[in-house]
Amino acid sequence: MDIELFRRHGHEFVDWVAEYFKSVENLPVMSRVQPGDIRKKIPPAPPENGEPMERIFEDFKSHILPGMTHWQHPGWFAYFPANNSPASVLAELLTAGLGAQCMVWQTSPAAAELEETVMDWLRGMIGLPEDWAGVIQDTASTATLCALLSAREVSTGFGANRRGARDPLVVYASTEAHSSVEKAVKIAGLGAENLRLIPVDEHFALIPGRLEEAVAEDARRGLRPCAVVATVGSTSSGAVDPLRAVGEICRRRSLWLHVDAAYAGTAAVLPEMRGLLDGVELADSLVFNPHKWMLTNFDCSAYFVRDPGLLIRTFEVHPEYLKTGRDAVVKNYRDWGIPLGRRFRALKLWFVIRTYGVEGVRSLVREHLRLARLFRSWVEAHPRFELLAPVNLSLVCFRWNDGRKNELELSALNKRLMEAVNDTGKVFLTHTALNGRFTLRLVVGQRTTEERHVRLAWELLTSEAEKLGA
Amino acid sequence: MDIELFRRHGHEFVDWVAEYFKSVENLPVMSRVQPGDIRKKIPPAPPENGEPMERIFEDFKSHILPGMTHWQHPGWFAYFPANNSPASVLAELLTAGLGAQCMVWQTSPAAAELEETVMDWLRGMIGLPEDWAGVIQDTASTATLCALLSAREVSTGFGANRRGARDPLVVYASTEAHSSVEKAVKIAGLGAENLRLIPVDEHFALIPGRLEEAVAEDARRGLRPCAVVATVGSTSSGAVDPLRAVGEICRRRSLWLHVDAAYAGTAAVLPEMRGLLDGVELADSLVFNPHKWMLTNFDCSAYFVRDPGLLIRTFEVHPEYLKTGRDAVVKNYRDWGIPLGRRFRALKLWFVIRTYGVEGVRSLVREHLRLARLFRSWVEAHPRFELLAPVNLSLVCFRWNDGRKNELELSALNKRLMEAVNDTGKVFLTHTALNGRFTLRLVVGQRTTEERHVRLAWELLTSEAEKLGA
Repeated sequence: MDIELFRRHGHEFVDWVAEYFKSVENLPVMSRVQPGDIRKKIPPAPPENGEPMERIFEDFKSHILPGMTHWQHPGWFAYFPANNSPASVLAELLTAGLGAQCMVWQTSPAAAELEETVMDWLRGMIGLPEDWAGVIQDTASTATLCALLSAREVSTGFGANRRGARDPLVVYASTEAHSSVEKAVKIAGLGAENLRLIPVDEHFALIPGRLEEAVAEDARRGLRPCAVVATVGSTSSGAVDPLRAVGEICRRRSLWLHVDAAYAGTAAVLPEMRGLLDGVELADSLVFNPHKWMLTNFDCSAYFVRDPGLLIRTFEVHPEYLKTGRDAVVKNYRDWGIPLGRRFRALKLWFVIRTYGVEGVRSLVREHLRLARLFRSWVEAHPRFELLAPVNLSLVCFRWNDGRKNELELSALNKRLMEAVNDTGKVFLTHTALNGRFTLRLVVGQRTTEERHVRLAWELLTSEAEKLGA
Repeated sequence: MDIELFRRHGHEFVDWVAEYFKSVENLPVMSRVQPGDIRKKIPPAPPENGEPMERIFEDFKSHILPGMTHWQHPGWFAYFPANNSPASVLAELLTAGLGAQCMVWQTSPAAAELEETVMDWLRGMIGLPEDWAGVIQDTASTATLCALLSAREVSTGFGANRRGARDPLVVYASTEAHSSVEKAVKIAGLGAENLRLIPVDEHFALIPGRLEEAVAEDARRGLRPCAVVATVGSTSSGAVDPLRAVGEICRRRSLWLHVDAAYAGTAAVLPEMRGLLDGVELADSLVFNPHKWMLTNFDCSAYFVRDPGLLIRTFEVHPEYLKTGRDAVVKNYRDWGIPLGRRFRALKLWFVIRTYGVEGVRSLVREHLRLARLFRSWVEAHPRFELLAPVNLSLVCFRWNDGRKNELELSALNKRLMEAVNDTGKVFLTHTALNGRFTLRLVVGQRTTEERHVRLAWELLTSEAEKLGA
C-alpha cells in the first residue's frame, strides 16, 4: 500500500471511528452472533495475492463488527470497564505509526523517560509514597505475578531464581481475591496448595486476625510465609481489604505485601476516596489499571514498587547483544517485567492525563460513583430487589428476591433475568457468586455512561423481572 | 474532547504518520538525546486541568520525536527489525477505536474467531503440522515461558501447579539460545542452575550428541530432564539448531521440545527456506514473531502448540465472574497465556496478510535475504573485513580485521567503528559476542530497506574504518 493510499484510508478510518463513537449506543452491547458464525465467514486459507483495502474494510464492517461486544457502549455495566477515549485513540495511532520497540533506553529514550515521568504523575495522583517507582505492564495479572516473583526472590535471598522454587513458601489472599493470584502462584512454581485463602467478613473484606492465625500456623508447621495479596476493590463485589491492619501484620512478619487495586486504584484520585489506600505505605507493591477506569486504551496496567532494585534483580539477564553504552545511567524497562520487547504505552497515558487534567479524571470518577449510589438507592427502595454487598465504589451487587423462593430457584431466576436484560442489547451486566448466591453485578465506569443509561438498566431489570413472573 | 475535535486531530495525525513514513529516512536512526534530556522537558506533575490537543501534539513533535529511535527507518540494521506497515497501522487504529478487551469469546466473538483463523493461516504459511493450534502472545519471551510452564506441568503430571516446583527438572538449550530462556527458567521456578547450555558447533548450532550426553548425565544423577529449547535463527548469529536430530532425542527421552524461531520463522514462508523447520513435527511448541519480520505492529507473537489442551490445563482458573453460557463450545483465549485481558491483535494480522498476500510477504523476505547475501559478498571480498558466522538468513556477523591486531585491540576498534557508523545517523547496527569476539551484526529486515541502504551501510563501514586508522 503506498503512502497516499494510507492517507486516504486513514482519513476514512478516522471518520469511521468518529461515527462509531457517536453511534455505538445504537448497537447491541453484547454481540448476538453464535459460536462459529464469524469463523465461517473467513476463508480457511490466506490469499496468495494482495487484496485492496476497500474489500478488507468492507469485510471488517460486515463480518467483524457484528461479532464485536461493544466495551465503549454507554450501556456497558459488565465485568469492569475498559475505557478508551478520543485522546487515547489518537495517541495509539501515533504509537502504531512510530512502530518503536522500546525494550531499552537506547531503542527509544523518549519512551523510557516519558514512562518514568507519567508513572510519577500517576503515583502522585493516587497518593502513593513519593519514593516508589512505577512501570507499565500489560495487565494486573502480569503485575501480580511480578510481585509474587519478587516476593519469592526476597524470601529466598534470590535463591529460587538460581536453584528453583524448592522452599515451601506460602502466599495469602482473601477468598475474594482475583483468580490471577492463584494463576500467579502456579506460574511462579509456588503451588496452589500453598495459597491460603483467608476468610472475609460480612463486607467481603479479609479478616486480619484470620490472616495472622494462618501465618502463625504455617510458620509453626515449618512452612515459610512469603507474601500477602490484599485486594482493594474486589472483582466480585468491590470489597476493600483493610490495608493498614494487613500491612502491620506483613511488616511484623516480614511478608511482601502486594496490593491489587486493578479497578479501584483510579478512585484514589478523589481526595474523598483516598482512604481506600490508607496504610499503603506499609506495602511493597501495588497495581492499578488505567486501562480500566482511566480512559486509556487497553493495555496499560500501572505497577508500582517500593524498591525497584528488587524488581530488577528478579528479572535481569545480561546478554551481550542487549548491552549498550548507557546501561549504567539509564532505566532499561526490559528488566522490570517478563517480556523483553515493549510498546510505547506511556504516550497514551500522557495524552489522556493532559487532555483531561487530573480534575477531569476526578469529575468522571465522581459522577460514576454518584450513579452507582443512585442505582443502589433504587435497589434498596424496591420491595423485590436486594443488595448483596456494600457499595464501596461504582459496583452494585444485587438480585431479585421476593422472599418466597429457595436459593436454587433464586439463582435460576436471576440468571434468566440477566440473560433477558442482556438480550435487549441495550445494556450488558455480568454476574458473580457471593456466599454461593448468583449475584448480578452492575458496574458504572464506561466513559460515556450517563444517568439515563443507568436508569434504563434499572427499568429493564424491573420490567424483565415482571415479565419473568418474578 | 468532543468527537468533531477527534475527527479533526485524527485527520491531522494520519497526515503526520503519512509524512513520517515518507520522511523518516531523513531523521537520524538512533536518537541523539542524552540521558535525562527528555525527562527534563516534561513537568514533574500532571496538569490540574485539561490542555488542548494542539499543545500536546506540539510537545509530541518537539519533545518526544527527537527522543525516538526510528525502527521504521530503512537504515535499520540493528537487533532484529520490528516492522509496521500502513495496513497494520490502519488496523491498529480500528482496534484502538473499538477498544474491546477480548479475554473470553463472549467479550468479542469476532476477536476470538478471527484469532483462531489467522493463526491457522500463519500455521499453513510456515508449514507447521495441520493439527497444531496457535494463539497470539505479546512477545517470544512470554511464549517461551508458556512453553516451559507446560513442559513443567506435563513432566510433573500437573503437580507443580498444585504442589510447587519441587522436582529437580532440567531444561536444555544451546549456549547461543536467547536470554529469554534463562529468564523463563527462573520465572517458572525451575532455577537457572537447572538450565544446561549445550555447546555449539562451528556454525553456532547446538550439537545433538552433546545434548544427548547431558540428558543422560542428568538422568543418571537423579535429576529429571524436562524440556529442550531449540533455536531457529539465533539472536547473535542467526544460527539454526538441527531440529530433526534434537526432536528425535526429545521423543526418545520424552522431553518437551520448544522451538524459538522468533525472527527466522517468517522466512519459512519461502519454499526454498522451509528446510529451516525440517523436523518441526517432532516438536511440541514453536514461537515466531510476525511483529519482527512480517509487517505487523509490535506486539504480535505467534505461539503454536501441538496440544492446546496441555496449554489450557497449565493456565486455566475458573472464577464464577468469568463463566459464560458458551464456555463449553468456544475458545476462551484467557486460558492460553498469562494475562487475563487481551487486545484485539488478530485484526492487524488479518489486515496485513490480506493486504500483502502470502506472495507479497514472500517477495519481501526473499529480497531481504538477497540483500544480506550481497552484503556478505562485500565482506568476503574485502581484505580487511571478515565474516564471523555463516549467513543462514538476513543477518550478517562480521568485523574489521587486518590480521595484525590482538583480540582486545580488535574488540575496541570494532566497537569504535560501530559507534562511528551509528553516529552518522544514517544507519544503525548493534553488536554481539561470538567466541568472545566483539561482533558487528547487520540485519536486513526493515520493510523499506533497499539495496541502496545496504550499500550505504557498507560505504560507511569501510570509510569510517579508514578514518579510524583501522
